[in-house]
Amino acid sequence: MIIDVHGHYTTAPEPLGAWRDAQVAALADPGLAPDPAGPRISDDQIRETLQAHQLRQMDERGIDVTVFSPRASFMAHHVGDLATSTAWARICNDLCARVAGLYPERFAAGAMLPQSPGADPATSVPELERAVTELGAVTVNLNPDPSGGHWTAPPLTDRSWYPVYEKLVELDVPAMVHVSTSCNPAFHTTGAHYLNADTTVFMQLLQGDLFADFPDLRLVIPHGGGAVPYHWGRFRGLAQALGRPEPEEMLGTNVFFDTCVYHQPGADLLLDVIPHPGVLFASEMIGAVRGVDPRTGHHFDDTRRYVESHAATRGLDDAAVHALFETNARRVYPLLDRRLTERGLTRV
Amino acid sequence: MIIDVHGHYTTAPEPLGAWRDAQVAALADPGLAPDPAGPRISDDQIRETLQAHQLRQMDERGIDVTVFSPRASFMAHHVGDLATSTAWARICNDLCARVAGLYPERFAAGAMLPQSPGADPATSVPELERAVTELGAVTVNLNPDPSGGHWTAPPLTDRSWYPVYEKLVELDVPAMVHVSTSCNPAFHTTGAHYLNADTTVFMQLLQGDLFADFPDLRLVIPHGGGAVPYHWGRFRGLAQALGRPEPEEMLGTNVFFDTCVYHQPGADLLLDVIPHPGVLFASEMIGAVRGVDPRTGHHFDDTRRYVESHAATRGLDDAAVHALFETNARRVYPLLDRRLTERGLTRV
Repeated sequence: MIIDVHGHYTTAPEPLGAWRDAQVAALADPGLAPDPAGPRISDDQIRETLQAHQLRQMDERGIDVTVFSPRASFMAHHVGDLATSTAWARICNDLCARVAGLYPERFAAGAMLPQSPGADPATSVPELERAVTELGAVTVNLNPDPSGGHWTAPPLTDRSWYPVYEKLVELDVPAMVHVSTSCNPAFHTTGAHYLNADTTVFMQLLQGDLFADFPDLRLVIPHGGGAVPYHWGRFRGLAQALGRPEPEEMLGTNVFFDTCVYHQPGADLLLDVIPHPGVLFASEMIGAVRGVDPRTGHHFDDTRRYVESHAATRGLDDAAVHALFETNARRVYPLLDRRLTERGLTRV
Repeated sequence: MIIDVHGHYTTAPEPLGAWRDAQVAALADPGLAPDPAGPRISDDQIRETLQAHQLRQMDERGIDVTVFSPRASFMAHHVGDLATSTAWARICNDLCARVAGLYPERFAAGAMLPQSPGADPATSVPELERAVTELGAVTVNLNPDPSGGHWTAPPLTDRSWYPVYEKLVELDVPAMVHVSTSCNPAFHTTGAHYLNADTTVFMQLLQGDLFADFPDLRLVIPHGGGAVPYHWGRFRGLAQALGRPEPEEMLGTNVFFDTCVYHQPGADLLLDVIPHPGVLFASEMIGAVRGVDPRTGHHFDDTRRYVESHAATRGLDDAAVHALFETNARRVYPLLDRRLTERGLTRV
């Protein structure tokens, strides 16, 4: 089985975007406010968008299950205030839960949190709990920069984040650390802000001692860990200078990188440098990079090819490949593992 | 010959730091202002710091010449105002020029600019001109974020930066794009902010069309290009989606990455992925990472080893190695090339 831990509903039916547009417009003119019950989207509309896009490509690439959360760039926590994000998160999470309900064998829901610049992270806990216990989400996305590229929030090691971690541990769900749209003109959203956030958060974790307080907390850093594996010697040297343990001690227990690295040499480096218990297969399809590489004839984001090619050239055995594609994810996402087990798909 | 294009005077004599402390203290209490003529530092003090540190390690590693600029983290353009930075840049640049004067065969001066948050970049032009024409600097460091981690400046493609570029082209010197200390608690200076800046600026350049306006402008992006080579497929895919040329078209003519990547797999990736005319040898020694890797017994930042090991495993011929260590740098830094040529060291 191949589990992709990083997918977003980037192709959601048009009424979702229209609802959001109205919500944003209502910030200036309350008369434009959309229906608080949310957009009207039929099951058929959901099926159409998925069958034309994600499901089609999952079938083409042999991806069995995708962890599927609201579109990352549309979380846009910087827009409006806490009430804005609370309403928007609820609607987006409900929609992803419907996706998982319609295709329980293909999608597991992830959720966004109703974060807002300056809002106490504790205000996200009710929606986190609702998403997991009522909607069946197996993970949430945690935005370390709700300001959208101004980085006004304290590091993720700050105690203000602890209520979120306490709830994650209690519910036994991991968080993917994922920023949203950059509203800072210096940062291109997917070409700079996403990668910078990954690097930034890894260094925050390396500087702090968060996992002493939360030994069971699991944070997934996407996009192959930003710049971290490429600069692994720098991070090892900085850890040494700061009197911190070798950074790989966090990996595989508390911190995980996904495989969203869109060329073979990058994927090779990730898998050569990072111990494999710390790596989870993912593609973020359909996401930031949707094109076909004219040099290979394949989609840039068809990461399964890179992992399989790596396995072939490095002579990884079946168990090692199986860990990358399935077992590691089932270990990190126990609610997903339970659901698969209930379907008779035992974790080997 | 081996030229290291990325060194900073991180070991400058103590009076420099004391002068800066007084300058910062004077922002609150003008009575504490230091001597406007600068700190008193003897030639012997300069020699001592270099012989104990940079020169010793250059000799140990076989580095012939280092491009040597003021300590990056001490530029701290966010401190004070334009007058603060103007005085500080002048003093730091004078000191680096003295280093190059004392050891003309071993150091070529780089300079910092008197940038300040919100100040028109044109205000840096006089010091840029002075550093090159009067002090003999062969390059300057250009900070894309004078705010120190708040990223309040427009992208480097913005026309407000053009006066700097016009002067760089006129003087025929490259700029190294290098941020300074992060005063944003989210960003560790050397573990996040430096790498983020490299990634951010590359994406700014990819989005814009700066080199159509400045075909002769040369920008060196340090630290191995941040996250860029590791995510080369992402950047190629984003370029495609944005209707921009293959990003490698900028490399080797207008944009260059240095080799400050502190482990073998990272250096291998850089040199496997990026066409070598776009790569310049560098170590940033003595800099962010000063320790010895217990797994290899060598300094993390002893990048010559990685390049030579890469050359051996990939079977690079002498000309290819020579380009990485010397020829590329002499092409990008013509004032350095001219000085070497005057010494009889012809560029081969």
